[in-house]
Amino acid sequence: MLPRFRHAALVGKFQSEGIAAALHEIGQFLVRQGLKVSLEQQTALNTGIKSYGTLEVDEVGEQCDLAVVLGGDGTMLGIARRLARHGTPLVGINQGRLGFITDIAIDEFAETLTPIIAGEYDEERRAMLEGAVHRDGQLIFEGLAMNDVVVSRGQTAGMVELKIEIGHEFVSNLRADGLIVGSPTGSTAYALSAGGPILHPAIPAWVLVPIAPHDLANRPIVLPDSGGITIEIVAGRDASVNFDMQALASLLHGDRVSVVRSQHQVRFLHPCGWNYYSTLRRKLHWNSGVN
Amino acid sequence: MLPRFRHAALVGKFQSEGIAAALHEIGQFLVRQGLKVSLEQQTALNTGIKSYGTLEVDEVGEQCDLAVVLGGDGTMLGIARRLARHGTPLVGINQGRLGFITDIAIDEFAETLTPIIAGEYDEERRAMLEGAVHRDGQLIFEGLAMNDVVVSRGQTAGMVELKIEIGHEFVSNLRADGLIVGSPTGSTAYALSAGGPILHPAIPAWVLVPIAPHDLANRPIVLPDSGGITIEIVAGRDASVNFDMQALASLLHGDRVSVVRSQHQVRFLHPCGWNYYSTLRRKLHWNSGVN
Amino acid sequence: MLPRFRHAALVGKFQSEGIAAALHEIGQFLVRQGLKVSLEQQTALNTGIKSYGTLEVDEVGEQCDLAVVLGGDGTMLGIARRLARHGTPLVGINQGRLGFITDIAIDEFAETLTPIIAGEYDEERRAMLEGAVHRDGQLIFEGLAMNDVVVSRGQTAGMVELKIEIGHEFVSNLRADGLIVGSPTGSTAYALSAGGPILHPAIPAWVLVPIAPHDLANRPIVLPDSGGITIEIVAGRDASVNFDMQALASLLHGDRVSVVRSQHQVRFLHPCGWNYYSTLRRKLHWNSGVN
Amino acid sequence: MLPRFRHAALVGKFQSEGIAAALHEIGQFLVRQGLKVSLEQQTALNTGIKSYGTLEVDEVGEQCDLAVVLGGDGTMLGIARRLARHGTPLVGINQGRLGFITDIAIDEFAETLTPIIAGEYDEERRAMLEGAVHRDGQLIFEGLAMNDVVVSRGQTAGMVELKIEIGHEFVSNLRADGLIVGSPTGSTAYALSAGGPILHPAIPAWVLVPIAPHDLANRPIVLPDSGGITIEIVAGRDASVNFDMQALASLLHGDRVSVVRSQHQVRFLHPCGWNYYSTLRRKLHWNSGVN
Repeated sequence: MLPRFRHAALVGKFQSEGIAAALHEIGQFLVRQGLKVSLEQQTALNTGIKSYGTLEVDEVGEQCDLAVVLGGDGTMLGIARRLARHGTPLVGINQGRLGFITDIAIDEFAETLTPIIAGEYDEERRAMLEGAVHRDGQLIFEGLAMNDVVVSRGQTAGMVELKIEIGHEFVSNLRADGLIVGSPTGSTAYALSAGGPILHPAIPAWVLVPIAPHDLANRPIVLPDSGGITIEIVAGRDASVNFDMQALASLLHGDRVSVVRSQHQVRFLHPCGWNYYSTLRRKLHWNSGVN
Repeated sequence: MLPRFRHAALVGKFQSEGIAAALHEIGQFLVRQGLKVSLEQQTALNTGIKSYGTLEVDEVGEQCDLAVVLGGDGTMLGIARRLARHGTPLVGINQGRLGFITDIAIDEFAETLTPIIAGEYDEERRAMLEGAVHRDGQLIFEGLAMNDVVVSRGQTAGMVELKIEIGHEFVSNLRADGLIVGSPTGSTAYALSAGGPILHPAIPAWVLVPIAPHDLANRPIVLPDSGGITIEIVAGRDASVNFDMQALASLLHGDRVSVVRSQHQVRFLHPCGWNYYSTLRRKLHWNSGVN
Repeated sequence: MLPRFRHAALVGKFQSEGIAAALHEIGQFLVRQGLKVSLEQQTALNTGIKSYGTLEVDEVGEQCDLAVVLGGDGTMLGIARRLARHGTPLVGINQGRLGFITDIAIDEFAETLTPIIAGEYDEERRAMLEGAVHRDGQLIFEGLAMNDVVVSRGQTAGMVELKIEIGHEFVSNLRADGLIVGSPTGSTAYALSAGGPILHPAIPAWVLVPIAPHDLANRPIVLPDSGGITIEIVAGRDASVNFDMQALASLLHGDRVSVVRSQHQVRFLHPCGWNYYSTLRRKLHWNSGVN
Repeated sequence: MLPRFRHAALVGKFQSEGIAAALHEIGQFLVRQGLKVSLEQQTALNTGIKSYGTLEVDEVGEQCDLAVVLGGDGTMLGIARRLARHGTPLVGINQGRLGFITDIAIDEFAETLTPIIAGEYDEERRAMLEGAVHRDGQLIFEGLAMNDVVVSRGQTAGMVELKIEIGHEFVSNLRADGLIVGSPTGSTAYALSAGGPILHPAIPAWVLVPIAPHDLANRPIVLPDSGGITIEIVAGRDASVNFDMQALASLLHGDRVSVVRSQHQVRFLHPCGWNYYSTLRRKLHWNSGVN
């Protein structure tokens, strides 16, 4: 058994109504369990809760040994990305329909968190994408992504043409609406909608998924996450790149988007016996009696 | 045998280099065949050819009984859309790789056009989409499309949510990158890249193809072209609509894009014995020895 | 309003337990509504019900003006195929999960059938496939199909190679696990699983869907149902053909499977206001809250 | 630089006409290069070549330090599977269109093999699947596969229902035509036709690809190759299992097909600078000028 946690940060979904009461309840529970509780600063501002000290995200990373997140997968991915370099483990509590990652229901949080706090949990590590954009050899943008890095055509333009390289090897020139570089975490998000496969989180790989490719033989490819991927804008107006939806628009021909595996990993804690396939079945409605 | 043609308009690809010489050669050939030849006005401006009288597109429709187009499928679709209400038949000559519609190679134009001019040809009619956008009950945009009407998400935004109705019947709320309403002509264009089926041109139908749909069960649907289709923007920022790539951006929630079959059809003339499947094989590289 | 019905045949699912009681209840209801009721012969044998006169299927077609079917889509398609040449209209009552065609729930049958019997209904006609297999110019098999005609590879063999012709035009040589020729009715069955589009029942078309094609550009094609389709076995051991799951195995090289539209159509009666898209939403779980 | 090879076995495609002359030429070349040359026994029988000593496959594995294979990918996979436990490296020479693995053209074999023989090559290791079938707890079949293990429905039967487990975790009950467990090597073979992604050979993973699944959300999944996969026949008549096309038919309900990673790997030698993506481009016709 692992040592129990001592100092938890509470993080809530941005601008979510009615979250204050639930956060308060979780905070009181954690205090009763003997933990020190701090509130992430933005969460404190949004909810007006004043019962706990507040910490900026980096202070959470430095001072807390656990982050308890109330919200959906989007909230979780946002804070997880920012805490990754501190190695802070996260647990996710969901007020609505359970997510791929936020898999503790609000009305079961107490019985589920109790053993986790005591050190009884399954830990899962997820890889992150680290991306950069270079123009004329100069770095003009960089970012982290837990789900995906997406290069897309301009909205009112036709296809974009992208030159794809892995390491220093040329892969292909792709003409398409765009290209998704997805992590295992992202493989059940946008990449799945665009026709990509599901990647088990333990696979050390990215998946390249072309979006509406002109050439029907341009199929998704699963690649080792150890090599860098470079995507150069060859043709097409107003292309853009997104890192987990943080966007840089108006890419120019010759701009190069590069993606490598981040040295940091995100740590998610699950109840013991947590099962990835059970989450897939629930989220994708497998065996739901279709006929 | 149908009566021979008397007055041909020459139409050339926009801003294409080296097109003047080929157009000139085609024009001289037509004159030798006994036809009156006019030059579409924009083509005259682009090429500087002064040997023939010039006509605006609508004058072409009123005065000419044939339009000879030099260019690719894009050029052909552009002029065909504008001539459709006049019923002017079109033939397409291609300087490069043959298209789906522009299927006469430049170096065979004389022997191929000779019987067509004499009235020996296969005529094929293609349906067109007529679209309109209403905001608060007011018409704010309308247009024709030979390939497709496409509603898309904003570039740096997430999915768009679209409410789809056929006639007055609700079909579904779609969350996706967008939705393509494709004609049989358009079914081998963008709709194919997005996962749609090929529609034989004689099928009186449109195909609805969702682009990267969130729900994996949102599959392409082939619908009678006799009923109207309405697509309402329910959620998502900065959605846009394209009619054959003519775009209207910044759609608002509640905006309604409606599509009906145009009362006009485009008339393409092909050499006798022309074969749709042969075009498919050539364009899609079927039976090209993959193994 | 159409004239009311006078003589209904009751048809039940083959070897279904507990069907006798429900059939009996429906029969009594029909008698109370003033109809003469007969029992399809096989249904009588299966259930042991002796309260009504029995008729063979062809006698049902000759004597009854309505067939009331208790079962799922499979039962309905089986009897509909056999009654098609008589033009007998059918209604479907379902004891379990509603089907695409059998859309009246058992516990609502009385209120739903009452107006239908009185002549208030929406009628929908569905096209059927008529197939034949020729070997060395001799007819060796023929059959009708409401869903699809499927040519498949031998089970322990590799791919089959099929030469596809439409009318007298060569389409392609397909190497694949097989080929589905699907009707609009069949487009939501096996053809959908193999990657085909949904065809609205009013579309006068078939869809050709290759099963696991070797060449990735071999996409589904929607074709006018007015022309004949011929599929010749070119290579592959032990290919077979299925007409709605009635199978002919051990096809030889050179065997030709031909498919045309049957001159007969099936007539389904639905409650007034019946909506095809509502059925699609229910069966495909659209808008079921996936996220 | 690695030590040069000393004793090569020649292996030829089974029942291939005109292979004797080419094999002879390769053999003479190898002798001139100073290698001892033996002929695989079956190849000797097929070709009638008597110039070299013959060895059974296991003797090749024990005595030779290189196998030179003349044929396509099928020939190569067949012999590679049998030599895997000996660790014998293989090179592939192709008389026809180059394969994914047999990438040396016959008319360039001498200049390509010369440096390889001298120890200058890129070596690539490929994982193999090891499968077994148990009935009532008894082992009834086992085999190795380089491409895939495939469980399929009976030919004239409907869907098969398969219960899938990874390790001891339940994944799903799949209703489909079948299920492919593909290796990275197999990901460009049958699995690709069935809609699977391409897996780079260095990815330590299998891909599960459902064939024509009933539930549209049953998408391909990429799994760590470290865990065992078990597939139990739950429903469906006459299911079969194939290991690289070696088939076991007539599976019964309750039969369990289990797949683990073989402890052996296949060793392929390529010319220095060999590039996997170049092979993909060539085989899938990427960038071949489709438009």
